[in-house]
Amino acid sequence: MADTRIADIRITPIAFYDPPLLNNAGCHQPFALRSIIEVETEDGVIGLGESYGNSMTIDGVRAVAEACRGLDVTDLNGLWARINATLTDQVDGYNTGAGRLVLRVGGAIEVAMWDAFGKATGRRVVDLLGGQVRDAVPFSAYLFYKFGQHQHESGPDVWGEVLTPEQLVDEARRMVDLHGFKALKLKAGVLEPEAEIAGLRALRDAFPDAPLRIDPNGGWTVETTLKLLPQLDGLVEYLEDPTVGLEGNARVQAATDTPLATNMYVVHPSHLPPNMAQDAFRVILSDHHYWGGLQASRELARVCEIWGLGLSMHSNSHLGISLAAMAHLAAATPNLTYDCDSHSPWQTDEVIEGGKLPFRGGKVTLPEGPGLGVTLDRSELARLHQNYLDCGFTERDDATEMKKYQPDWEFARPKF
Amino acid sequence: MADTRIADIRITPIAFYDPPLLNNAGCHQPFALRSIIEVETEDGVIGLGESYGNSMTIDGVRAVAEACRGLDVTDLNGLWARINATLTDQVDGYNTGAGRLVLRVGGAIEVAMWDAFGKATGRRVVDLLGGQVRDAVPFSAYLFYKFGQHQHESGPDVWGEVLTPEQLVDEARRMVDLHGFKALKLKAGVLEPEAEIAGLRALRDAFPDAPLRIDPNGGWTVETTLKLLPQLDGLVEYLEDPTVGLEGNARVQAATDTPLATNMYVVHPSHLPPNMAQDAFRVILSDHHYWGGLQASRELARVCEIWGLGLSMHSNSHLGISLAAMAHLAAATPNLTYDCDSHSPWQTDEVIEGGKLPFRGGKVTLPEGPGLGVTLDRSELARLHQNYLDCGFTERDDATEMKKYQPDWEFARPKF
Ligand SMILES: [Mg+2]
Ligand SMILES: [Mg+2]
Repeated sequence: MADTRIADIRITPIAFYDPPLLNNAGCHQPFALRSIIEVETEDGVIGLGESYGNSMTIDGVRAVAEACRGLDVTDLNGLWARINATLTDQVDGYNTGAGRLVLRVGGAIEVAMWDAFGKATGRRVVDLLGGQVRDAVPFSAYLFYKFGQHQHESGPDVWGEVLTPEQLVDEARRMVDLHGFKALKLKAGVLEPEAEIAGLRALRDAFPDAPLRIDPNGGWTVETTLKLLPQLDGLVEYLEDPTVGLEGNARVQAATDTPLATNMYVVHPSHLPPNMAQDAFRVILSDHHYWGGLQASRELARVCEIWGLGLSMHSNSHLGISLAAMAHLAAATPNLTYDCDSHSPWQTDEVIEGGKLPFRGGKVTLPEGPGLGVTLDRSELARLHQNYLDCGFTERDDATEMKKYQPDWEFARPKF
Repeated sequence: MADTRIADIRITPIAFYDPPLLNNAGCHQPFALRSIIEVETEDGVIGLGESYGNSMTIDGVRAVAEACRGLDVTDLNGLWARINATLTDQVDGYNTGAGRLVLRVGGAIEVAMWDAFGKATGRRVVDLLGGQVRDAVPFSAYLFYKFGQHQHESGPDVWGEVLTPEQLVDEARRMVDLHGFKALKLKAGVLEPEAEIAGLRALRDAFPDAPLRIDPNGGWTVETTLKLLPQLDGLVEYLEDPTVGLEGNARVQAATDTPLATNMYVVHPSHLPPNMAQDAFRVILSDHHYWGGLQASRELARVCEIWGLGLSMHSNSHLGISLAAMAHLAAATPNLTYDCDSHSPWQTDEVIEGGKLPFRGGKVTLPEGPGLGVTLDRSELARLHQNYLDCGFTERDDATEMKKYQPDWEFARPKF
């Protein structure tokens, strides 16, 4: 039997090019931060994970790495016990930022443990998660308003500026032509709400059959949202985080049959009971990176199934290990009721061998081979780690970036 | 890599000796029915399960066995899809008896799939379920009122008649002396409630520190239960299914801080949302035999953790494969907040090699070896299968048995 006890856990921060995408919090910086996690077993098998690149996550994984040595890669209960014991000084309750840190640190390592177990036993992660229920995993086109170029760049990127309905439709056409997505998601909370609704209408005209979504990231007041509902009802398959908090969104949900979706206000197990009690959100966008990994995400899916909630999948800027993990998880989740989100089409760098996993007809086919089916391109890892060292960023800061374009811009949530 | 696709699924009904134990539904018959499930892989590995012995479960497993051929033993999603497709004629909703059949049939096979995967990969089931969190699994003493002997027997069994507080304390002493249990559970709904409370008080006097429980199996009216609460509060660690249904028990729970527990009215995932909404039961007695197996039970445990409910474990008359599965599951469940129930001390027959798993200090230590760590004693299996053929029972029927002793006895729930 393979010795699958953990011999070493390594985390490598990386930075990769990111276009100037806009959201309620500001503008994406020229580099997105991420981390690559390697869990090496006593037998030398290396399991891979990918997670956030902020210093708290990186420090957190490093802080628990030694304590997790000797754990079997199947021992998820042991992982959580050791992380809770190690990070205990930083943990003062489920709802705090630190409480969330435990789930982020654990989730980062947990995925690599599944990958290692799969590689050690010749099993795919999707099989270890309960079996593949769909051949390929459908994703949506993640559409952003954006500037044409970063401040330091001499000309626009290939996507150009996107601030008008016409430019938005061009962006959507390009993304659909490239990848075949069926559903279209508009990141909103950037322009005046009526301008964004005009963008949605233009998308509807150009793509009559596409399921549409809009995500203002809590950028609208309850009053604004209620006023916009007549225009949104029947236009979108769900309305994502229109306003701030469970209570505000519950007031919106009470006024419409359009399901409300969230990746902002139900982001921890402790948020589930109040969400169910208040009927705030009827669709959860799961994300294994902050829910605590693949097992926790599968359990979240079961909760959604039992309570009759819809289920989709959230994304931050990410590379191929995350995409592979999302695809394995989604392929093992029977009640994935909406196409998943992914920033992948916006990324030009990659850290896995063979380059980016392709979308075909808007879907990702699971890479072949045991575990997650991906391996590290170590020269790219080294280059992207050097990027991280060179770029000087250690936290994501969309607001500061935004002020480079619009010095008087101020973050507000809700804003409109 | 081991070929772990399912080559064959077999189910063997068995009957084993059972003492004349009393409950709200009547009296245990001389034989308890059970079934032994074998899932054999293409490589010849045999995974074991144990489940109900009623004809619906046996017919159900046989009906789906052919459809499950070729599934990998890790493919739990595939198992449920094939069972739902095969039994679809019998399934008209989650809450029906037939809806429950799907979970019982799936659960019976699912445990054997885990066992087979463990044996094929050299892993214990507890490890595959997320890792061992306790060295040994604590059980309660399951105390019954009982007749001294079955109708056909010439003299009392070793436990004798138990119908008075003094006899109940003797039974408890014998069981605690034999097995070292700490918590004491009284099966009630048999005698007048005041007589059963007198039994509890006698147990309290004889075992001042023992956590006590009482389980009338829905045998009391809401009014009776409310009247008894002042005597029960502070005496029991939980009050199990005192009255009928979610609504009635919610009325009781609203009147007491003593948590109400259930294995009767939250027995299917669809019962969880109304239970949480109504605050009916604050402790769930899980049972992998009817919840759909080990993965479903682990997911139930997570729901209990997230919603802040207590968790214990239910038992029917069973043999060693069930006890091993219960122990592996419990050992992998961090939030098992109460000692588990088991009928095992009442059983004299066994179907696993080496005889019954012992309780030491009230706890079961996981048997060694991969999978569940138990193997079939095929000569005992043959003997107990012959018992099944000879005894003529195909359904459990406590009421008919009870009428042999008390011809005018009638089933009623609530009764008192
Ligand atoms: Mg969102
Ligand atoms: Mg009970």
